[in-house]
Amino acid sequence: MHSSKIINGTRYAEEIFTLLKEEIYTLKKLNIVPCITAIMVGNNPSSDAYVKIKKTKAKDLGIEFRVLKFEENIQLDELSKSIAEVNKDSKINGIILQMPLPRHMSKDSHVLLDIISPYKDIDALTTYNIGALISDTHHVSPCTPQGIMYVLKKVFCDNMQGMNAVVIGRSKIVGLPLSHMLLRENCTVSILHSSTKDITQHTKNADILIAAIGKKHFIKSHMIKEGACVIDVGITRYNSKLYGDVDFDDLYPKVSFISPVPGGVGPMTVAFLIKNAITLTKLQYNLPINHN
Amino acid sequence: MHSSKIINGTRYAEEIFTLLKEEIYTLKKLNIVPCITAIMVGNNPSSDAYVKIKKTKAKDLGIEFRVLKFEENIQLDELSKSIAEVNKDSKINGIILQMPLPRHMSKDSHVLLDIISPYKDIDALTTYNIGALISDTHHVSPCTPQGIMYVLKKVFCDNMQGMNAVVIGRSKIVGLPLSHMLLRENCTVSILHSSTKDITQHTKNADILIAAIGKKHFIKSHMIKEGACVIDVGITRYNSKLYGDVDFDDLYPKVSFISPVPGGVGPMTVAFLIKNAITLTKLQYNLPINHN
Repeated sequence: MHSSKIINGTRYAEEIFTLLKEEIYTLKKLNIVPCITAIMVGNNPSSDAYVKIKKTKAKDLGIEFRVLKFEENIQLDELSKSIAEVNKDSKINGIILQMPLPRHMSKDSHVLLDIISPYKDIDALTTYNIGALISDTHHVSPCTPQGIMYVLKKVFCDNMQGMNAVVIGRSKIVGLPLSHMLLRENCTVSILHSSTKDITQHTKNADILIAAIGKKHFIKSHMIKEGACVIDVGITRYNSKLYGDVDFDDLYPKVSFISPVPGGVGPMTVAFLIKNAITLTKLQYNLPINHN
Repeated sequence: MHSSKIINGTRYAEEIFTLLKEEIYTLKKLNIVPCITAIMVGNNPSSDAYVKIKKTKAKDLGIEFRVLKFEENIQLDELSKSIAEVNKDSKINGIILQMPLPRHMSKDSHVLLDIISPYKDIDALTTYNIGALISDTHHVSPCTPQGIMYVLKKVFCDNMQGMNAVVIGRSKIVGLPLSHMLLRENCTVSILHSSTKDITQHTKNADILIAAIGKKHFIKSHMIKEGACVIDVGITRYNSKLYGDVDFDDLYPKVSFISPVPGGVGPMTVAFLIKNAITLTKLQYNLPINHN
């Protein structure tokens, strides 16, 4: 049970990390130390910060984490070859192709991602892994949606049957996979986006509202239903402070549960990245995997 | 422009077939005759009827169509091998694994489907092709949803921006791919299903309503919005007559457009199966493909 309305993502992430530590320990006894490699192209301060968080957490847990940096102006061919080499390296168990890529190759991002074997794709963004998620035959799924589902299952004691879930945002990384996961939990799911005409008409009916828009404090209390559970996935940097999509103070009296920014779903993303890395490492070694 | 509210699927299918005939003629001049092979397992009268319709249409258009029938009690291994052989055969350009499979192998249907190369998968049901649809990098997509989108684009003159689309049914063959296609046209999309608590609350807001439930005349006029466009994908056989999910006569006065059963989206499915076969044949021969 929850003692507070505020969803403490850091605490939930710690729960996951505790379980993962055991799995890493078991692997270590088999002389297996999972190794993640992050491939970065160009200089993007946000990407640097994200990769640093992932690296620190991996190292903390005793997982190897390498970073491979390429110049912004690298040619597609050369980058493809390098990704293929990393992919072939049997010592590397999980690969991150850090997004966003420089503009000159952003249209080829799916081609580059698909060089990564689905068995090393710890972001679960290759075409095959996306299809596997939709087909319910997946081993890994995108990290942020996994984190959100973990939180929601805790909050609703594993029963979201028939709830109205409204997802604002239709990205391949958050909105689309999350919508599918909510459907699998038997929610009725509505997907809203920049072309939606009357956002409030939909959000007013949401038992579960997921905001993944990227607009500072876009969601106000008049837009939600009394007692809704609100998950804020947005991050906007403004005057060197981070803001979510949700006007937290305005919504707080009206919600049953709310995730803050920062400290909400953010920490969960890293936890599920590591979890995916462990799952795929185990599959590579034909070890039984933990589907919980 | 439409002279009637009733969506004439047969007429639209003929439009497609006319375009496809030209493409088939162009291929013939290059000495290419596309060849489709349908793999059937066991005896299912509905499957026999569907395959017969596909075969007749393919032959009419000058496309080769083979049927490979296996006994109901065939072992998974043996069937896998046979699918792999068909897949390897360079003379065969498009493969259908006719669903449903016998109960004893239905849980392995995705494994069997994935033996088919994404380049021969004319039903667009392999894991890779499902992922490609979600990633918007696909060459082919599931046939019935393609047919529905063709009709909707005609009806709304290619502009569905911001419309509320409600899809009832979340199957891998219709509901899920269709939801994605509607999102790509900038509709706000809601996905309803057997666990939805108040169906009418959602259908009442639908500018576009897609019923893919499989319950005879489930949708009544009080459930829809005045002027909605209603597409009926359901087929229920009752006393040897076919019924849709929509109570056509009840809805007719209230809708802007409505698709009947039979004669609505049914004929479109075969048209887009042949279109997929031609698209993949062209890809196999490195010929430019028509994305319209």
